[in-house]
Amino acid sequence: MAPSQKTAIQPTRTENYPEWYQQVIKAADLAEHSPVRGCMVIKPWGYSLWENMQADLDRRFKETGHENAYFPLFIPKSYLEREAEHIEGFAKECAVVTHSRLEANEEGELIPTGELDEPLIVRPTSETIIGEMYSRWVQSYRDLPILINQWANVVRWEMRTRLFLRTAEFLWQEGHTLHATREEALAETRRMLEVYRDFAEEAMAMPVLRGEKTAAERFPGADATYCIEALMQDRKALQAGTSHFLGQNFARASDITFLSREGREELAWSTSWGTSTRLVGAMIMVHSDDNGLVLPPRLAPLHAVLLPVVPKEDQRVAIEARAAQLRDELAGTPYAGGRLRLRLDDRDLRGGEKNWSWVKKGVPLRLELGPRDLERGVVAVSRRDRDPREKESIPFAELADRLPALLEEIQENLRAQALAFRREHTHTLRTREEFEEFFGAEEAPGLALLPWGGTEEEERAIAQRTKATIRCIPFEDEEGAGWGTCPFTGREARVAVFGRAY
Amino acid sequence: MAPSQKTAIQPTRTENYPEWYQQVIKAADLAEHSPVRGCMVIKPWGYSLWENMQADLDRRFKETGHENAYFPLFIPKSYLEREAEHIEGFAKECAVVTHSRLEANEEGELIPTGELDEPLIVRPTSETIIGEMYSRWVQSYRDLPILINQWANVVRWEMRTRLFLRTAEFLWQEGHTLHATREEALAETRRMLEVYRDFAEEAMAMPVLRGEKTAAERFPGADATYCIEALMQDRKALQAGTSHFLGQNFARASDITFLSREGREELAWSTSWGTSTRLVGAMIMVHSDDNGLVLPPRLAPLHAVLLPVVPKEDQRVAIEARAAQLRDELAGTPYAGGRLRLRLDDRDLRGGEKNWSWVKKGVPLRLELGPRDLERGVVAVSRRDRDPREKESIPFAELADRLPALLEEIQENLRAQALAFRREHTHTLRTREEFEEFFGAEEAPGLALLPWGGTEEEERAIAQRTKATIRCIPFEDEEGAGWGTCPFTGREARVAVFGRAY
Repeated sequence: MAPSQKTAIQPTRTENYPEWYQQVIKAADLAEHSPVRGCMVIKPWGYSLWENMQADLDRRFKETGHENAYFPLFIPKSYLEREAEHIEGFAKECAVVTHSRLEANEEGELIPTGELDEPLIVRPTSETIIGEMYSRWVQSYRDLPILINQWANVVRWEMRTRLFLRTAEFLWQEGHTLHATREEALAETRRMLEVYRDFAEEAMAMPVLRGEKTAAERFPGADATYCIEALMQDRKALQAGTSHFLGQNFARASDITFLSREGREELAWSTSWGTSTRLVGAMIMVHSDDNGLVLPPRLAPLHAVLLPVVPKEDQRVAIEARAAQLRDELAGTPYAGGRLRLRLDDRDLRGGEKNWSWVKKGVPLRLELGPRDLERGVVAVSRRDRDPREKESIPFAELADRLPALLEEIQENLRAQALAFRREHTHTLRTREEFEEFFGAEEAPGLALLPWGGTEEEERAIAQRTKATIRCIPFEDEEGAGWGTCPFTGREARVAVFGRAY
Repeated sequence: MAPSQKTAIQPTRTENYPEWYQQVIKAADLAEHSPVRGCMVIKPWGYSLWENMQADLDRRFKETGHENAYFPLFIPKSYLEREAEHIEGFAKECAVVTHSRLEANEEGELIPTGELDEPLIVRPTSETIIGEMYSRWVQSYRDLPILINQWANVVRWEMRTRLFLRTAEFLWQEGHTLHATREEALAETRRMLEVYRDFAEEAMAMPVLRGEKTAAERFPGADATYCIEALMQDRKALQAGTSHFLGQNFARASDITFLSREGREELAWSTSWGTSTRLVGAMIMVHSDDNGLVLPPRLAPLHAVLLPVVPKEDQRVAIEARAAQLRDELAGTPYAGGRLRLRLDDRDLRGGEKNWSWVKKGVPLRLELGPRDLERGVVAVSRRDRDPREKESIPFAELADRLPALLEEIQENLRAQALAFRREHTHTLRTREEFEEFFGAEEAPGLALLPWGGTEEEERAIAQRTKATIRCIPFEDEEGAGWGTCPFTGREARVAVFGRAY
């Protein structure tokens, strides 16, 4: 709570969650809408969150044998058309490049000229262009597997955009792999979902459910889509990453064949998997509170800020000198495989304003050094996951040990809080009445576990009526997964997770 | 030389330099043309060169106080038009997005629909869209300076494309800064050129000349363009990075004003600076030889490969086990602020083929371990900057010390070789006759230093006749810089560097 008992973010989460989300982003200076339809500007603090996510994911991709490469931004229209479901899925929302020049007309107005023979589509995803290249690279089983990832921007025009969560252009990574056998491709699909799960839980401190999408929610052109799903604080679900088993669909579309060990010409098997800047939105929504952004230490641009508190001018030199010395002493402190990221904030601002600016930016630890602290040889440490006024005095000599330990405590605490929240808002339902009541609420009520044996049409009808969709059929080792009697059809069926979704 | 006395790359540099360049790229598997007009595919080995460049440059940008951010891919046509020279410079070669959907017509053919109210241009550079955002962010001098960099893709359609050197889409970084005073903006422009110079010389081992462009070669909309220029092995010059002092031109175009300390409304001053995947092309051309790619160790994806040599099957277990042990022992070896990147190559390939594959990929050190080496407790080390058959035996126990030292020797040797080459092919000319003779050659003759007092038209006329352009007016502390009598005009003038350019 702010000193005035007001929260730093207005409105609060309970008052108006979507508006709270906007205000958290604004107060932390993460991003804003641009004048270009549906496109956002990611500002430095927001971009450094994405950079930290990239670095962590990239390490995990490389540890699992993947390499990065880069493919063209543009996809010829005819390539997108090669896979019927795929073009069907993306044709409605794509940026079409039709001309290659601007030239002045008779009124001096610049108009598009140099019409292209074939329109180019700004990639909404790259299966088709990458498939074309793979078809040139693969001759024999010796050329397999191909394990490539791309960091890139993609464009899918959307009617309604929300910062990070849904924007026309977004940044992402897309893995595209090619295999000699179905089993290998399936194993890869699962392996990368586990990488996403580990990343979400370890780095983002965000618990996720792993499962498979139903046909209605599958990636256009995939045989199976696996996903990780997280629950936000407004009890809506968010798909945080997907891994697709593409079967031989894209290999057929792009004619990717190879000579097998047995000398037969065979179609390859492929996968693709992606996560995007949407994860930044998920991270904001899972952890932040009514005082602004709360960041898991592993991904925080700064782990700690050191704030000199100078009530009288004649104390300034001594306090600022000791603060600078502390900063230098702590510079090499190891944390989480890297170094402690600590900034000394000696801006000329009122102490309260300065302190609250870092609360709103979500920095995990704030270290104040005032005259009394200096005398006692301590700093007053506040944790972002606790009440902002709570402080603990830590002696200078203990900081190098205590700060990394505190960061790990915060990381674990955020994860545990988010898991408790998800458990509290996940309900096992047995009857149609229970289902209708659960999703009859105006507000999203959370996740419902329910055996589902219906058809794709029945699934769509339920979505229309209740706004609840099947987030996934959870893997068998997930909490609440299993079999039961579907109350809609009476069939024995796998348990599905229903929820309203972003 | 390859055992057969043939070189690994055919043709050689002297036989056909442009074709040699293509073949080096192919043999090292760096990149290839895509089916999309003018766009290339950067393959994993080539992309990791770019990743290493990015990491090094990014560290330098951050050390000089810059932060990364991300701005939209699309620029509304009207924004580009705000700065007259700017649109003039880019209108002829831009990708124009005119539609937002594909829909089937009566024949079932997908055609572009959903025409946009205003065409969008795929960014050829981002001054105008970033300027628009800055105009919203800046109110007072307290908001200045803004020091932001963006890593992004850009598109400029070109008639003739060459891998890395000139492609329709390329990857780059663009810094965009905003300042309260002319002096500050000028200092920033110079500071970033020095960053580029240091990077080129320290990381790429590529000596460069720093200087200012003449009006004819200036960035469209800039008041001054500074550049670093390097000499390739075919004696053509390549612009490796530019830093632009934009004056108040873009501030005027985007209405970026601020309240000064003295309470006056003033126009801000801006700079922009960029380097691109073109640097990969420069690095290839500066160092590589007739056996393929030669990489400066600081940027090499692998510093060393360890190659077990197994002439008889019964020796395999012992040799491969010791090789694996060496790899593990050397894993943490410090090099250049990071770790030694060493790979054990135990692929089932003939030894010669395996060895040559790494020669062609440019790995700085190759370490062979055969039965005799194992007995003697040594590996046979070959340096990529020496004859491929030359080997030095280094005892196991000395490797952790010797390998980093050898890498630094190679780094310095490549830089020294490139500098000697540039000096050998840089000539001070005094008369028109000397100039005409120098550039009368069919092949590019190198760089010429000559006082230049002519006009922009005279400069263009010379370029038309001789294909030589003014690469820059070198800064005063560069070799050969100074004043003299221009032989074309008789005026006292600054020395210019002329050369044929990529």
